[in-house]
Amino acid sequence: MKLAIYGYGNLGKGAEMAAISAPDAELVAIFTGRDPSDVVSEFGTPVYSSKNVYGFKNEIDVLLLCHGSSSDLPLETALLASYFSVVDSFDNHGETAKHFSDVNDSARLGMKLALVSAGWDPGLFSLFRLYASALLPGAVIDTFWGRGVSQGHSEAARRIKGVIDARAYTIPDDDVLFESRMGTDKEFSAFDRHKRICYVVTEDGADRDKIRGEIMELPGYFKNYRTEVYFISDEEMKRDHMSLPHGGEVICRGKTGVKGKHKHSLKIQLQLDSNPEFTGSVLIAFARGVKKLYDMGIVGAITPFDIPPSMLSPLSHEEQIKKYL
Amino acid sequence: MKLAIYGYGNLGKGAEMAAISAPDAELVAIFTGRDPSDVVSEFGTPVYSSKNVYGFKNEIDVLLLCHGSSSDLPLETALLASYFSVVDSFDNHGETAKHFSDVNDSARLGMKLALVSAGWDPGLFSLFRLYASALLPGAVIDTFWGRGVSQGHSEAARRIKGVIDARAYTIPDDDVLFESRMGTDKEFSAFDRHKRICYVVTEDGADRDKIRGEIMELPGYFKNYRTEVYFISDEEMKRDHMSLPHGGEVICRGKTGVKGKHKHSLKIQLQLDSNPEFTGSVLIAFARGVKKLYDMGIVGAITPFDIPPSMLSPLSHEEQIKKYL
Repeated sequence: MKLAIYGYGNLGKGAEMAAISAPDAELVAIFTGRDPSDVVSEFGTPVYSSKNVYGFKNEIDVLLLCHGSSSDLPLETALLASYFSVVDSFDNHGETAKHFSDVNDSARLGMKLALVSAGWDPGLFSLFRLYASALLPGAVIDTFWGRGVSQGHSEAARRIKGVIDARAYTIPDDDVLFESRMGTDKEFSAFDRHKRICYVVTEDGADRDKIRGEIMELPGYFKNYRTEVYFISDEEMKRDHMSLPHGGEVICRGKTGVKGKHKHSLKIQLQLDSNPEFTGSVLIAFARGVKKLYDMGIVGAITPFDIPPSMLSPLSHEEQIKKYL
Repeated sequence: MKLAIYGYGNLGKGAEMAAISAPDAELVAIFTGRDPSDVVSEFGTPVYSSKNVYGFKNEIDVLLLCHGSSSDLPLETALLASYFSVVDSFDNHGETAKHFSDVNDSARLGMKLALVSAGWDPGLFSLFRLYASALLPGAVIDTFWGRGVSQGHSEAARRIKGVIDARAYTIPDDDVLFESRMGTDKEFSAFDRHKRICYVVTEDGADRDKIRGEIMELPGYFKNYRTEVYFISDEEMKRDHMSLPHGGEVICRGKTGVKGKHKHSLKIQLQLDSNPEFTGSVLIAFARGVKKLYDMGIVGAITPFDIPPSMLSPLSHEEQIKKYL
């Protein structure tokens, strides 16, 4: 499959590394919003201005959209899905239905296939929640994110006027995590389960109170969470906050039998040294599935829920059965 | 969907309970190899002799095959897949490729759809292994079963001449489990990772040494595992070994980045009070997917890898996105 990357930040670089390692992928191009002569790929991938992407319409099987969800993807995915089959990692949970619908209209118009919300959450964790709920009806499902750096949230904070850089950490509430692991019957909201800490570097003379307020009110990102905002220097940011680890777990508790006498628990847990490198790797796997479904004539928008898992693997069906079934 | 259950042991009863709770299922019949007048469903489901199953050819969307893998399913699934769309829980890992191929031939002949190897392993754990390997290429994957009762292994031991009853426990090796959780670079075989303990009730005068030897040599079940066989009385079996808990975990460790500098770990964990009730519930979810794919014209054999996860859920696509993506 011929791939290209649109957006060359952390995620784009992670996707590049994964594309280069994939046995069945050829990375044709990287598209950047910056001046392409200022951008060099350490693997020698050709870099072009994002304005030139349409000229590659017939040379790319799947375009990997590697910008963030707060302001880029809501427009970009729908725009590009008329011209390319695409995969994005849209992660603003509250806006996903609208995003899906916009992208679906656009992809159908262009007769292309667009997969939205690939990654680990949404993505792998979503798949686990769906399987768990289907396999164990009536189960209670708790998702915990962190401790880790949320790229979408960091990027959302960076978009605020006066902010030079921002790093948002998501941290599970220890007490709630413990209760959930122990199999409580209580139900928790995402706001109960997490707090968020945001480290921010501002422009000289910026109105920090205003910035703090704007961050804490960002809907779908920080609003309604226990959020702490700390202002730090550019030096502190570079010294203490350059790695991008993340992780989390989903705990699912259910019952079967007469009067629910049998309890069952299912859990998935993830620890990532580099969120963008793992997420980039996930984009490649879903691109594989998108190409296969598109070659079968499927167009429109889909989610990770709509792809048979076998299509994500580079192995033959026989090898999959032998190694993984 | 109209369902029926073929085989009314522990798994059949678990599947019945799940079918009755499902919002979109109607349980038409139970088929038993025993005299149906001796068998009563506590939910009032009609019980018929398995000889009469063919008379229901036009009244069932999916037939749930609830016998064991050691001697029943290798013949039954292929036989019945010419007449019905079916789901089985075939769990003899080493024989799966042959089973799949036999069932595929038969289902294509009858223009039906057959899903093999639904359950938690094979099944949910297989899906996790496939996703993990696709999303994190080159990862090392360790599967641990137990501590719990392996129904397939118990049933395989029960088939041996002179054995009245048997209960096989699978137990993970503590040291290997610890090393895997800690992220070792070592690789382990299933034989390293587990030991098996089998409690056996024999007929009066049975040759216990011969039975022990036959159990320990059962290929695909006990052979090459550290297996301990203990002979107990019928009273001890009924007193100490009537519950059917199980569980396990799959640990996946991988690396990305230059010289693999970033480590990632993915883990799924399961604890079940009742293996047959959970597995029965899994059969219903996959039956839902089988009906949907069959209605789209798909025939032949498939595995859990071949069904888009969205098809396992009774919820609409919109609700799935809202609740689980």
